[in-house]
Amino acid sequence: GSESGLIRATLFPGDGIGPEIADSVRQIFKVADCPIEWEEHFVGTEVDPRTQSFLTWESLESLRRNKVGLKGPMATPIGKGHRSLNLTLRKELNLYANVRPCYSLPGYKTKYDDVDLITIRENTEGEYSGLEHQVVRGVVESLKIITRQASLRVAEYAFHYAKAHGRQRVSAIHKANIMQKTDGLFLKCCREVAEKYPEITYEEVVIDNCCMMLVKNPALFDVLVMPNLYGDIISDLCAGLIGGLGLTPSCNIGEGGIALAEAVHGSAPDIAGKNLANPTALLLSSVSMLRHLELHDKADRIQDAVLKTIAEGKYRTGDLGGKSTTTEVVEAIFSTRIFDP
Amino acid sequence: GSESGLIRATLFPGDGIGPEIADSVRQIFKVADCPIEWEEHFVGTEVDPRTQSFLTWESLESLRRNKVGLKGPMATPIGKGHRSLNLTLRKELNLYANVRPCYSLPGYKTKYDDVDLITIRENTEGEYSGLEHQVVRGVVESLKIITRQASLRVAEYAFHYAKAHGRQRVSAIHKANIMQKTDGLFLKCCREVAEKYPEITYEEVVIDNCCMMLVKNPALFDVLVMPNLYGDIISDLCAGLIGGLGLTPSCNIGEGGIALAEAVHGSAPDIAGKNLANPTALLLSSVSMLRHLELHDKADRIQDAVLKTIAEGKYRTGDLGGKSTTTEVVEAIFSTRIFDP
Ligand SMILES: CC(C)[C@H](C(=O)O)[C@@H](O)C(=O)O
Ligand SMILES: CC(C)[C@H](C(=O)O)[C@@H](O)C(=O)O
Repeated sequence: GSESGLIRATLFPGDGIGPEIADSVRQIFKVADCPIEWEEHFVGTEVDPRTQSFLTWESLESLRRNKVGLKGPMATPIGKGHRSLNLTLRKELNLYANVRPCYSLPGYKTKYDDVDLITIRENTEGEYSGLEHQVVRGVVESLKIITRQASLRVAEYAFHYAKAHGRQRVSAIHKANIMQKTDGLFLKCCREVAEKYPEITYEEVVIDNCCMMLVKNPALFDVLVMPNLYGDIISDLCAGLIGGLGLTPSCNIGEGGIALAEAVHGSAPDIAGKNLANPTALLLSSVSMLRHLELHDKADRIQDAVLKTIAEGKYRTGDLGGKSTTTEVVEAIFSTRIFDP
Repeated sequence: GSESGLIRATLFPGDGIGPEIADSVRQIFKVADCPIEWEEHFVGTEVDPRTQSFLTWESLESLRRNKVGLKGPMATPIGKGHRSLNLTLRKELNLYANVRPCYSLPGYKTKYDDVDLITIRENTEGEYSGLEHQVVRGVVESLKIITRQASLRVAEYAFHYAKAHGRQRVSAIHKANIMQKTDGLFLKCCREVAEKYPEITYEEVVIDNCCMMLVKNPALFDVLVMPNLYGDIISDLCAGLIGGLGLTPSCNIGEGGIALAEAVHGSAPDIAGKNLANPTALLLSSVSMLRHLELHDKADRIQDAVLKTIAEGKYRTGDLGGKSTTTEVVEAIFSTRIFDP
């Protein structure tokens, strides 16, 4: 916290549409009277030699100090000798769990109306080790690393989350029939943790079967926990079930109580600065941030206002098939009067 | 071919419901007057020391000799020092491409009615290398191997298939933004092959985005080609879109012109021997086998009869929400009279 009694939070507006939708969050936080003081950090235009990324050392330090933050979309030039911003953040801040609540939005029609699940993705190792090399010409290998420590850590988080949120079931997703040692170790850790939570049903589901079940009947799932790449795949699949990344919040949990909420959609440079961006995913991510701070009353109000606006269906941005501007959507959210004392 | 002028094909009826649904195929092949002579091989009950699997050497030899076969589901006891039958087959016979046509079945309602795509999966390497070890206690690694040879081979097959079947577009599915060397090599090979097929549109889609697009709008895809694990995941996801593995054919293509069609669903021991099994996936796989043999007239007739029976909806097995026996479904297929000269 700061001297003003406000809680300081780091804000990375990000690229493209990032600044606009970050503005929407600021405005709504003001109207909802959230006790948050934003410490804004821009993404650099030059690679910071200390982080080898477009993310500066100061940005990282801000988040380390505040322990809580919100991040808009960031464009990362591909390849060329510097690391992806997302990966840098995850690595530098040890953001070990990526949590994505995914639920059908009343009034926003997709093929599915009964989705209500949480994907929890191990965010630091697995297929994302960065360890790759050419064995001989024409033969390359990547190393997938699974450790007991990281697996226990994310499993603990998943069960803790399930219990704290009154969820009934945790499904560990794997391919241990093929990767017996790596995914086998992941499952072993999940089983160990599961034993400490007898009130929560634990099951193991092979990833291919999981994807088939998700598209046939997503209501079968509750909390899913999984290694990095499976989490990457399944969290996007689940977002697709309810309408896409423009509607899904995400929060990264790090060692030492750090939480970085983020919109995981792209920076949409084509519509940047045109007041056409959909602020929903960043708003719902800011709700995740508020919940992390245990500001549940504020979180509820903002979430209800956002969902009510979607349900009414009158003000929607282009990506959701509407014609509204960002400003119109934000005003519709205000006009729900859900923020009135 | 054999002396009788018939084409010899190897049949592995498999376990559980395998023998019943293999019988359905035999019967329908007889009624449709298919020029096939089956050479049946049972799965052993003891591990064959020469293959370290329940698949005997004689079975493999039969397929090597006949170059074409059909396989029912096989139960593989998990773990315990012998390899999965499926993996043994893929490895021993170098079945480098797994091809799964996946299309909405008129009359069988799911959330999707516009699926018409083909997944082509590299079937021999990638995450299925079997190379895993413990680095130190609590740290394990798996090696994903991508080779130029196998990538070119499957890419060639995919483009060849697309052209031969009048398909417009090939999408290579990858995660080269993370696995730059392995998936990068896979993409490089796909690009090389794509250049030889200027009439076919080539695109590259990241696996997480691909899964999201598939559940939102599968009509965006045509032919998909991908490394082993992504193929495993996406082919099952796609099967889910149209109703599940009970409805989807599969065919494995090997070096030297070998083709092994197979039903990829489970052996359903709970209903085995009760005349309740759904013969559809094995029947449609046998159609793939006939097409491989260029017996298109026979293939068309059987496929039409199976699809007509599904579309009529009167005779369906329990897994499809019906109450019919296997025999009733087979009789319904006969009664379409599509086999009449
Ligand atoms: C952009 C990419 C590196 C990233 C990932 O693979 O983790 C993205 O897909 C995500 O899910 O945040
Ligand atoms: C049973 C298993 C080893 C197999 C695989 O992972 O390839 C299966 O899922 C398949 O798709 O044939």
